[in-house]
Amino acid sequence: MMSGIPFSVYYQDNDIFVLLGCGISTSIIGALLWFFTRKTERTDIGKREGYLIVSLGWLVMSLFGAVPFVLHGSIPSYTDAFFEIMSGFTTTGASILDDIEALPHGLLFWRSISQWIGGMGIIVLSLAILPLLGIGGMQLYAAEVPGITKDKFHPRVKETAKRLWGIYVILTSLETILLMFAGMNFFDAINHSFTTLATGGFSTKNASIAYYTSPFIQYILIIFMFLAGTNFTLHYFALHRNFSFVKTNDEFKAYSLFILITAIVIMILHHPHLEISLEEKFRQSLFHVVSLVTTTGYVSSDYENWAIFSRIVFFVLLFIGGCAGSTGGSIKIVRHYLLFKNGFLELKRLVHPRAVIPVRVNGKAIPPEIISNVQAFFILYILIFVLSSIILSVTGLDFLTSIGASATCLGNVGPGIGTVGPVANFSHLPDFAKILLSFLMLVGRLELFTVLVIFSPSFWRR
Amino acid sequence: MMSGIPFSVYYQDNDIFVLLGCGISTSIIGALLWFFTRKTERTDIGKREGYLIVSLGWLVMSLFGAVPFVLHGSIPSYTDAFFEIMSGFTTTGASILDDIEALPHGLLFWRSISQWIGGMGIIVLSLAILPLLGIGGMQLYAAEVPGITKDKFHPRVKETAKRLWGIYVILTSLETILLMFAGMNFFDAINHSFTTLATGGFSTKNASIAYYTSPFIQYILIIFMFLAGTNFTLHYFALHRNFSFVKTNDEFKAYSLFILITAIVIMILHHPHLEISLEEKFRQSLFHVVSLVTTTGYVSSDYENWAIFSRIVFFVLLFIGGCAGSTGGSIKIVRHYLLFKNGFLELKRLVHPRAVIPVRVNGKAIPPEIISNVQAFFILYILIFVLSSIILSVTGLDFLTSIGASATCLGNVGPGIGTVGPVANFSHLPDFAKILLSFLMLVGRLELFTVLVIFSPSFWRR
Repeated sequence: MMSGIPFSVYYQDNDIFVLLGCGISTSIIGALLWFFTRKTERTDIGKREGYLIVSLGWLVMSLFGAVPFVLHGSIPSYTDAFFEIMSGFTTTGASILDDIEALPHGLLFWRSISQWIGGMGIIVLSLAILPLLGIGGMQLYAAEVPGITKDKFHPRVKETAKRLWGIYVILTSLETILLMFAGMNFFDAINHSFTTLATGGFSTKNASIAYYTSPFIQYILIIFMFLAGTNFTLHYFALHRNFSFVKTNDEFKAYSLFILITAIVIMILHHPHLEISLEEKFRQSLFHVVSLVTTTGYVSSDYENWAIFSRIVFFVLLFIGGCAGSTGGSIKIVRHYLLFKNGFLELKRLVHPRAVIPVRVNGKAIPPEIISNVQAFFILYILIFVLSSIILSVTGLDFLTSIGASATCLGNVGPGIGTVGPVANFSHLPDFAKILLSFLMLVGRLELFTVLVIFSPSFWRR
Repeated sequence: MMSGIPFSVYYQDNDIFVLLGCGISTSIIGALLWFFTRKTERTDIGKREGYLIVSLGWLVMSLFGAVPFVLHGSIPSYTDAFFEIMSGFTTTGASILDDIEALPHGLLFWRSISQWIGGMGIIVLSLAILPLLGIGGMQLYAAEVPGITKDKFHPRVKETAKRLWGIYVILTSLETILLMFAGMNFFDAINHSFTTLATGGFSTKNASIAYYTSPFIQYILIIFMFLAGTNFTLHYFALHRNFSFVKTNDEFKAYSLFILITAIVIMILHHPHLEISLEEKFRQSLFHVVSLVTTTGYVSSDYENWAIFSRIVFFVLLFIGGCAGSTGGSIKIVRHYLLFKNGFLELKRLVHPRAVIPVRVNGKAIPPEIISNVQAFFILYILIFVLSSIILSVTGLDFLTSIGASATCLGNVGPGIGTVGPVANFSHLPDFAKILLSFLMLVGRLELFTVLVIFSPSFWRR
């Protein structure tokens, strides 16, 4: 909270004391909690405790993180502030702010860094912790992470975390420098770098990236969104010049190909009557495909008035997600890849009912339990999407807004369709809808099961 | 085709010679095909042949069935006529007719009886043939059908078919009598009985069931739609006074409860400002819930102007479907039940990772392969829905029409949303969309895999 104070001092903003006060109080509460529980410290943290710590961690951070906005008065309603900061920590990027630029720089920085912190949390969570909890196919990656071995919680998680965060920091710094080089000021550059690497999508401008007309800025963002949506272990291996690992990674290949093909198809079909250059058509199309697939949610033009085909595709992209082990949310490429391949092999199995035909990812046969895990994840994801769309419609939202809001929040993307489209925001939604959507962001960000398991009766038994 | 001629004679219609000519030519072609292939008859029909026979059967019937409409001139376009009769044989009920009542009685009867024939085909297919082919969970029912034993194709399929068809005929006759008793004339009564038992939904009236204001007619239809959406083996057991089997059937319980609860919730929420009696509210709500869940698709009022909540729920109902072994289409209750239960147990498995927790249906543990089968079915269903919605949008349809048309045709329901809503029809769609939707009806009706397997390379290898 206090990290943005230098900017507020520089720009002579009025949020210095609020940030200072909130920062100090939060630190004191944290210190007290630590002080009174330090002797009851347990080293035998089990799975149940794991689920609780992770879910409550995100919740408590958001409960405290919302306070500065309310105290400063720039977001008077606590529900709104909670929605905004939950959208930050879950790297969603959905906003209730009608005028982002009216916020003082310290609060803007807090808003952006919340996404960056959320992204850091997710990398470690998805590569080091969730696989050990056995969440919907995340086990696939446990073995691939340097320093992580199966069924061991402690050993080198700290080491791994440090390495991955190192890459995260390097990429963020690199993007900041490049964005400044392309014409952004330091404040905007570092804020956008924070929210790109986290695939968050908060911008410091009301018009999001449409504010910046420079093609260079857009291309830089496209590249870094793409990198942020890539499995961070691949960056690690690439930095160590182990390119064979990158080249043989099925998910990365599927991710790159899918983005390229979708961008080209949309480029061809999206606005045949528009008189703009081919380069700009390609850039606009690629920008939004990358932005939505990686679940960043930056907007460089209002695609709601593009061809209906593009709009449906953009809606479907809310369900794709980046690679596992990236900061991207939603269902994720590896799950789609596995399900698609399994569906295809299912046809083969019908023709050869006695043959055992395993699904292979990266050359390795995937055990049937994990496939069933991933299938259950997908089905649960669709179920949650459908149920929350229905509940949202009861609050009075129209059809498109209901499905758009629930899809984009569950997928941690940001922009939806209908009245929560790319150039709109979530401020007009009723409070109940905002609370439900905040919950959806959390559920989606923590791979569904981490949160839902807490609500199952068997979790609390004994 | 010739079965409707008596009505045309009675009502002095101009379609007598067309039906007679088409009927005789089709018979001659059939006889020739039989004559020239009778010596090459094979008794060792395998799975591959099974898929081909079933898929081509439906296709060839529709190719021939469309002819009378074109020759008579009441549906000038062959594409339109093909769509209409495919919608008949697949018991979908989607229509391209702007003025149904303008059709002569013989053709109307052909249109209705195509659904009845389709329904007959589906009962035998789903209870006797698909389980042996191992299609997405249909194996669950193989053991329960009287006279069917696992892995045996021939033995008593004929016997079973006769019994089930007996029940089908009895229910159809009973409904016809009751509808006449409630005020319909014989022609309308028998036509609606045909399309109710088949969960088809073709009506002889432009306004569908909204034409009949009598509450009795609506209640009779509700009851028979409900029965048509029930597993026909349950009717068989009930007729043999074996009620314990009916009482312990999980799918039937889930089906009844789901319909009742949904109808009550919609009754409470759908039009709070409308000044009609509670009975009528309940009846309207129940009618549409039963009509959509069983995939019949009759319409008794324009629910497109109900509350948004109801409309979203009605859209979601397109994905539910009747019980397995009924004439209902779509995903079907037993699959939802199994997936829902498995999702819930998945949470339990996360808490107790070492315990083996099987999914039980009707008290029996379901093998993991079948669960994975059903999961793959569900995912493939969603994939086909999404892809065809995208393709439809390229033909120029709007968002709601695209998703509505593909959902309702794939689910064999009938009415969609948008411009193919409950009081609209499919006549304004471009030819390409009609062909795609006809294909979707076939794919949905034959449980996806039966048709799709034919397009897999491994099907044709060796």
